[in-house]
Amino acid sequence: MRLRVGIVGISGFGGGEALRLVASHPSFELVHAAGEGSAGSRLGERFPGVPARLAGLVIERWDPEALPQLDVLFASLPTGSSAAALARVPEEVKIVDIGGDHRYAEGWAYGLADVWPDRIEGRRRVANPGCFPAATLTALAPLLADGLIEPENIVIDAKTGISGAGRGGADSGFGYAESNENLVPYGLLRHVHMPEMARTIERLSGGSAAGLVFTPHLVPMTRGILATVYCRGRATTDQCLDAARRFYAGRAFVRVTDRPPQTKWATGSNLAFVSYAADPARNLVIAMGVVDNLGKGAAGQAVQNANLICGLPETAGLDGAPVWP
Amino acid sequence: MRLRVGIVGISGFGGGEALRLVASHPSFELVHAAGEGSAGSRLGERFPGVPARLAGLVIERWDPEALPQLDVLFASLPTGSSAAALARVPEEVKIVDIGGDHRYAEGWAYGLADVWPDRIEGRRRVANPGCFPAATLTALAPLLADGLIEPENIVIDAKTGISGAGRGGADSGFGYAESNENLVPYGLLRHVHMPEMARTIERLSGGSAAGLVFTPHLVPMTRGILATVYCRGRATTDQCLDAARRFYAGRAFVRVTDRPPQTKWATGSNLAFVSYAADPARNLVIAMGVVDNLGKGAAGQAVQNANLICGLPETAGLDGAPVWP
Amino acid sequence: MRLRVGIVGISGFGGGEALRLVASHPSFELVHAAGEGSAGSRLGERFPGVPARLAGLVIERWDPEALPQLDVLFASLPTGSSAAALARVPEEVKIVDIGGDHRYAEGWAYGLADVWPDRIEGRRRVANPGCFPAATLTALAPLLADGLIEPENIVIDAKTGISGAGRGGADSGFGYAESNENLVPYGLLRHVHMPEMARTIERLSGGSAAGLVFTPHLVPMTRGILATVYCRGRATTDQCLDAARRFYAGRAFVRVTDRPPQTKWATGSNLAFVSYAADPARNLVIAMGVVDNLGKGAAGQAVQNANLICGLPETAGLDGAPVWP
Amino acid sequence: MRLRVGIVGISGFGGGEALRLVASHPSFELVHAAGEGSAGSRLGERFPGVPARLAGLVIERWDPEALPQLDVLFASLPTGSSAAALARVPEEVKIVDIGGDHRYAEGWAYGLADVWPDRIEGRRRVANPGCFPAATLTALAPLLADGLIEPENIVIDAKTGISGAGRGGADSGFGYAESNENLVPYGLLRHVHMPEMARTIERLSGGSAAGLVFTPHLVPMTRGILATVYCRGRATTDQCLDAARRFYAGRAFVRVTDRPPQTKWATGSNLAFVSYAADPARNLVIAMGVVDNLGKGAAGQAVQNANLICGLPETAGLDGAPVWP
Repeated sequence: MRLRVGIVGISGFGGGEALRLVASHPSFELVHAAGEGSAGSRLGERFPGVPARLAGLVIERWDPEALPQLDVLFASLPTGSSAAALARVPEEVKIVDIGGDHRYAEGWAYGLADVWPDRIEGRRRVANPGCFPAATLTALAPLLADGLIEPENIVIDAKTGISGAGRGGADSGFGYAESNENLVPYGLLRHVHMPEMARTIERLSGGSAAGLVFTPHLVPMTRGILATVYCRGRATTDQCLDAARRFYAGRAFVRVTDRPPQTKWATGSNLAFVSYAADPARNLVIAMGVVDNLGKGAAGQAVQNANLICGLPETAGLDGAPVWP
Repeated sequence: MRLRVGIVGISGFGGGEALRLVASHPSFELVHAAGEGSAGSRLGERFPGVPARLAGLVIERWDPEALPQLDVLFASLPTGSSAAALARVPEEVKIVDIGGDHRYAEGWAYGLADVWPDRIEGRRRVANPGCFPAATLTALAPLLADGLIEPENIVIDAKTGISGAGRGGADSGFGYAESNENLVPYGLLRHVHMPEMARTIERLSGGSAAGLVFTPHLVPMTRGILATVYCRGRATTDQCLDAARRFYAGRAFVRVTDRPPQTKWATGSNLAFVSYAADPARNLVIAMGVVDNLGKGAAGQAVQNANLICGLPETAGLDGAPVWP
Repeated sequence: MRLRVGIVGISGFGGGEALRLVASHPSFELVHAAGEGSAGSRLGERFPGVPARLAGLVIERWDPEALPQLDVLFASLPTGSSAAALARVPEEVKIVDIGGDHRYAEGWAYGLADVWPDRIEGRRRVANPGCFPAATLTALAPLLADGLIEPENIVIDAKTGISGAGRGGADSGFGYAESNENLVPYGLLRHVHMPEMARTIERLSGGSAAGLVFTPHLVPMTRGILATVYCRGRATTDQCLDAARRFYAGRAFVRVTDRPPQTKWATGSNLAFVSYAADPARNLVIAMGVVDNLGKGAAGQAVQNANLICGLPETAGLDGAPVWP
Repeated sequence: MRLRVGIVGISGFGGGEALRLVASHPSFELVHAAGEGSAGSRLGERFPGVPARLAGLVIERWDPEALPQLDVLFASLPTGSSAAALARVPEEVKIVDIGGDHRYAEGWAYGLADVWPDRIEGRRRVANPGCFPAATLTALAPLLADGLIEPENIVIDAKTGISGAGRGGADSGFGYAESNENLVPYGLLRHVHMPEMARTIERLSGGSAAGLVFTPHLVPMTRGILATVYCRGRATTDQCLDAARRFYAGRAFVRVTDRPPQTKWATGSNLAFVSYAADPARNLVIAMGVVDNLGKGAAGQAVQNANLICGLPETAGLDGAPVWP
């Protein structure tokens, strides 16, 4: 029997990707879709390639008190707007919040699924990590867990495709002509994902992440995140790779590669790629993490989290290989 | 029990997409991969996101006389090089030729699967249509079958993403910097796909396609084909749409849309989108067809054809929704 | 002595390109800039690369009755909004209207500068052609003038970079993630540029353009237009090329090429490229025209027109070679 | 009277951009062009938009002993191939080497023109900086000169458009379909530009650059470089901006901006943009530098250097504003 699934925020990119994954998931059946921008239209109008059996589903205006019976709800709402709304969802509906309001919030598991699956299983409320944290922390976790790098003084230089900035509007500055062939640093020293990353680094290492630096950049491509992370440590490249291979042994979605990873390796999938380059003489470890910002960085990890809290195989509905080229 | 599948030409884009689709197909198991450029390496080195169970498979140098036992072989070889090679494949191995050598060749079914599935079922040798014909003929078939347009004087203005031109080399002119932000018409009045289209138009209509004009263009995007086809006919837009809806009723992969179709609707899928705009006063019908050139235009249709000749459900392994955005 | 120049509509792409060209023009000095979206800011804030001497100029809110003394005004306002506004500009200020309101309007010259320079010289009001007409008509003019094609039954399949659709807003649908890797036909059978093209075809040929078909497409690139035009005629390719070479002999900005032209050949310049492929046996002539939609398709042609009406050398400020790659 | 100019390496991107700049330079006349890949063809065939007066110039095979009389030679040869060849050019021909062989070589000035114009004036041999050093060092020079950052422990995370990787060939991996929508780190801990940057940092600061870290990334865009540089220092953001404004006061090509600079601000120009973000509490200064890798990063700076060694105004032929969008 299939679980009854809802998606709220289906007009946005994260919600749209959740739709794609839910639509071909062996144990999920989409029975409810809600979204501001697209309320009233049928799924098939907004997503011309959606499976025929779903094309007629009407997108509702979001009302947490008028939900149909649901087993799981994926929420992909703008940061700041989901906390109040999701509080009104019945307790028995499991929620994976792709948005930013519940990360490290009370009562919510932090859904870094490849690192801490056991902290997620059995929970009813899971907050998906942000897209930058997903790429960064997946690369850092093995090093921090093994004490191969210092948790202080970590410098994260991150690059994201433009869908990571959300669906652009009039004042968004993400029009095609302005964004194409343009590389843009933004949010220096004050990006909203910093506290989440600092807290996770501290949890993984037991030390302080006080010196954390995070610089995001917008790259003229649709999907993909690469985090290039500069750390202090005396480990060799091989020691880092070995630590990661041990840490992720038996885990389905993290690939440890000898070569520096490329964003296109992950496109359309829930995979994360990590690699390392170290120079002990310079007390330097460079960690690299690649994800699809809408996959492992959003809807892919959300489905993985939903699988974990529903007692399904962790890889259910997530075994599609990346789209290349 | 899974069917044993081989792919030859796995270094190219068509072969790579066949790998992606075969890897998640419920009834196929990849047991053999061959390719010139990548022989000797393991699948996981060339395709970092390939499922773990396939990552260790070694890519062989292509030798039709040293094949393992296979049920189905997908061939994606450069035009001109597959005819001789495939002749040496044992008769009992079913072949879908994604390359150009066997289209309308003796003994080979022409695999326009959405139009003529019954001509493909039960065959052992199927020649996949070219990517431009896939987009064009899917849009034209209902009009030709119903006599709504004249088979003569059809003008096809087609636009393809750059992966449709094959994997570029030194003299290919398809380097990133040269191709990006560039739109290039090529092959005017002499493209290799013309005879195949003319022949199919004639088969569908019973008339002559002598006046066929075909102009392909390279568009700076990776995937996608749009064929904008200018025809002579007195039908209205609604008559054309109705004809297409009847023609493709019950067919899984063709979507008839009121709006002009966009290439991104199909990305990563085996879908085709068709639409029409007509002006009887000007004796004009514009037919539009969209496919992913590596999906319905190559590997997607190839898997569909393999399903048909293997007696599997036509949609097996092909139900993934398009990747958007 | 430099002429005093104003630009209204500087927030848009056409106005911005006019700024770039005016800034390095040997006989123009920008003394006035107006724009809705950017009023109140200095030019240097909106255009970080503007020459230092112009960086401090404050962008005004557009008020045709509070203009400083000007010799020439470039207007790049949305279609529908310039007719009333420009009527209030003092008669002695020469105007080149890049927008669409005055094409074939009474009292305005139609500024197809490479074709009819003598109809522009000495005028005070010039309406710049649309970007699609600029590409299309430059290619067709020699054939129509020589009677090599029939003016009826011309089919224009045109492709434009996304800046041609104007600066996108919330509801524009031209966000990066949605537009990238997407090819979109639009405005079928009803695009606003059709009457202007029909009228010019008729003026050039003396015949009727009643059967004109025009299908524009949005291509995922910033700049560039290619018009692929299908005509009826018995000329050979060489006859068409010869006609164009004669027609444009001594003209600075039109290049007649043996090869099909590519959009990137024109990027950042005021050049137009035209070529032809014909098959007399099929009564077919394919004409191709390439321009930069912001160059010859907008601001470049506007500066050329301004040169003509100000008695300056036609090429003044327009001799920069295209940017490649 | 115009100076007689030659360009060798005109088939590559750097040579092509030198051609564009020389073609519209008020004091230069191109009289000689040489290149491997394009020898024998005329300039107009390889560069369809080249000014008409140059279109007929035949590209020669490069032979330093058969040069015509030249005042200035721009060399844009692959690293490793210019040292021997340029040694045979007559002493009286001034040379600007855009390639990598003569940076910090004996007898050659290091052409970091915005920083050390006085070290270049009056020389006959100038080695252009690499594209990454141009972006990085322009941003760092004011801080190093004022002692605002430590020369040790500088971490450079640099991103370049794909033309920065040179013109791709069969094994280059820079085909469009593979590179598009892909972000690729490469050359970790061993890029060829590192020694040049270390040496310049030491010259500017008087200290050791032993801990320098440099990680280049390929970004899916044609042009542009952004260097995001993480430094140790106790200066505030304003102190850094002030230092840069003083350092570059009166210099034509460097813009100090409050906002983080974007690569598209520089496209097609010789401009560099620098900005800073600092947090004294974390002992952190982030310096950012943006250039067009083919402009200030190659041919633009080469023309600037040629101006300096020929006694021309430094900005001659370089006053074009960036192409936007």
